[in-house]
Amino acid sequence: MTSISNTIDLACQLIAIDSITPEDKGCQELMIKRLEAIGFNIERLRFGDVDNFWAVHGESGPLLAFAGHTDVVPTGPHSDWQYNPFSPTIVDGMLYGRGAADMKGSLAAMVTACEAFVGEHPTHPGRIGFLITSDEEGPAVNGTVKVVEHLQQQGEFIDWCLVGEPSSTKQVGDVIKNGRRGSLGCVLTILGTQGHVAYPQLADNPIHKAVPALTDLSQEHWDEGNDYFPATSLQISNINGGTGATNVIPGSLEVVFNLRFSTELTPEVIKQRVVSILKKHDLEYKIDWNLSGLPFLTEKGRLVDAISQAIQSSTGRSTELSTSGGTSDGRFIAPTGTQVVEVGPVNATIHKVDECVSAEDLDTLHDIYLKTLENMFCS
Amino acid sequence: MTSISNTIDLACQLIAIDSITPEDKGCQELMIKRLEAIGFNIERLRFGDVDNFWAVHGESGPLLAFAGHTDVVPTGPHSDWQYNPFSPTIVDGMLYGRGAADMKGSLAAMVTACEAFVGEHPTHPGRIGFLITSDEEGPAVNGTVKVVEHLQQQGEFIDWCLVGEPSSTKQVGDVIKNGRRGSLGCVLTILGTQGHVAYPQLADNPIHKAVPALTDLSQEHWDEGNDYFPATSLQISNINGGTGATNVIPGSLEVVFNLRFSTELTPEVIKQRVVSILKKHDLEYKIDWNLSGLPFLTEKGRLVDAISQAIQSSTGRSTELSTSGGTSDGRFIAPTGTQVVEVGPVNATIHKVDECVSAEDLDTLHDIYLKTLENMFCS
Repeated sequence: MTSISNTIDLACQLIAIDSITPEDKGCQELMIKRLEAIGFNIERLRFGDVDNFWAVHGESGPLLAFAGHTDVVPTGPHSDWQYNPFSPTIVDGMLYGRGAADMKGSLAAMVTACEAFVGEHPTHPGRIGFLITSDEEGPAVNGTVKVVEHLQQQGEFIDWCLVGEPSSTKQVGDVIKNGRRGSLGCVLTILGTQGHVAYPQLADNPIHKAVPALTDLSQEHWDEGNDYFPATSLQISNINGGTGATNVIPGSLEVVFNLRFSTELTPEVIKQRVVSILKKHDLEYKIDWNLSGLPFLTEKGRLVDAISQAIQSSTGRSTELSTSGGTSDGRFIAPTGTQVVEVGPVNATIHKVDECVSAEDLDTLHDIYLKTLENMFCS
Repeated sequence: MTSISNTIDLACQLIAIDSITPEDKGCQELMIKRLEAIGFNIERLRFGDVDNFWAVHGESGPLLAFAGHTDVVPTGPHSDWQYNPFSPTIVDGMLYGRGAADMKGSLAAMVTACEAFVGEHPTHPGRIGFLITSDEEGPAVNGTVKVVEHLQQQGEFIDWCLVGEPSSTKQVGDVIKNGRRGSLGCVLTILGTQGHVAYPQLADNPIHKAVPALTDLSQEHWDEGNDYFPATSLQISNINGGTGATNVIPGSLEVVFNLRFSTELTPEVIKQRVVSILKKHDLEYKIDWNLSGLPFLTEKGRLVDAISQAIQSSTGRSTELSTSGGTSDGRFIAPTGTQVVEVGPVNATIHKVDECVSAEDLDTLHDIYLKTLENMFCS
């Protein structure tokens, strides 16, 4: 192997640690050592069984924080992988390993970008932060959300946040996420009366009662979306009713659905509209809601512009703003008023076997992060 | 205990044998010994692991067969019963034990009725048969259906059949079943494309596609029924779709439903109508039908009249004709052209713990069977 960049070298060191969620296993200490060496103040924040840390460089002024996670999703059987998922391997320019794209490559690029920036601008204006957790892929209870609470209690405010989630689709920088839809889950139980299929008049079939209401729910036009968000979508993911016997009408039916919703709606409005559909069909039911995240949006402005210009300068590409896809820890940071944008490598292989990232893309990402810091603080 | 009748004595002997379906365990040999003693010709017919027998008394002429089964449904834990289910116990006039009502009491009454009738009319006109299986409560594959095939191969034809199933609802003889609805089962798999709930445009949700069609299926007006049959009914008994994960749109949905149908419809017409509903909703699907029984009907005539008069004479009651309820082995006998009627004790406790029957009712049932034989052959 010819010599590799600092970014790729650090990415390999991080990938070599099997930090399956919510384990950190020393990844954060590797990062802390590097950040301490360039003058960052470190605050280790362990909540429950989750390692987190907060780091700041700079004396005063507005704060730009890099955010990310050291935990990775499980690998499945190692034998399904071409290369051991915890033995980082570069073949034909691709760096293979669990976390290469989601998101240890980004973490390495963040650290080396700060090393270069602080080396060049030791007394830069403003402040640079790191908000790192090891529980993004898991329940996300003792991770970013707790760190944000802690910072609020300290009176600390993050002006801008750059999350290293793999936002790119085909080429690094082609897409950045300037927001995410909200996610509202629901477990709905339709109640009926069990009985024998030969005596339907003595039973009350909850499946028959539910299907017209489920038709309405699945066909409801929730909103039009807006300039930044696609239209709100409801999807039924699970439906289960029946005893297994073919001659028994079941006593209840369980339906699980999820809404990905735009900033045009609130969870309260959605709940009211769901309940009014259920009432229209005169159903007896139990309902249990789970709000996993409110929608957030960072409109065009200083942060989006700085990142877009950095991508243009590093790659020649015009980046596309998107709010599509799943949720990210940005949902916990944005509600404090922070501008949040996600910028990371190509996401094609994340959560899959043979997860990989172009090694060259990690160097490009280092350059994008570095230029973003320069655009924010030195122009 | 004071002296008990021959019928109750034989019922107790049969109940004391734990002939859980498809085991016979000697019940049939008890019956055969009694029938041989009064001159019946016996043909033992074992198919697979199932004991059956066919017995005939009389030289020539029309054939009235008693039909029934020696197997019983499982008991569940004996500790749930007031009395051991295989230790027949009479308390306050009720005979307790598994099979007391379904249908060892009927078998005993059939045997003792024939003993009395043959004793009185040793050279009766016509012929009397017994078609007994030990697989009515189980898969019903090697039982009555195989015996009927065998009889057809022998050129034997049953003119009238009296099935001992517990047809009565409140008092013995208050209801007889002169037919049963057909039963047609279906396993329907609606096909879609799996995906993430955050990217519904890349998936094709089979639950969303199915629910309008299931609404139509569950609300379809199949027929009006007729003088003998209630309207045909479709019931969805099981519906299952989903991976268990709340953020995954499943690739398929399985729906199990069953129709209990009248003589106004045929399975072919029902299948066509179901398929046309599925086509109307443009569904991609797999469908698997299971016909468990065609409807059958024995209109008023010689057999129904003979039984009704016997019940009137024995109990003073006007019996009610019914085709409601589940299926019975009558579905295998009726298609050959046989008139089939079910006459048995009160069915309130069948398949339950503490199954029981009024001991006096078994003596009444003996009387009803005996008078039916007299009405058919000696009037």
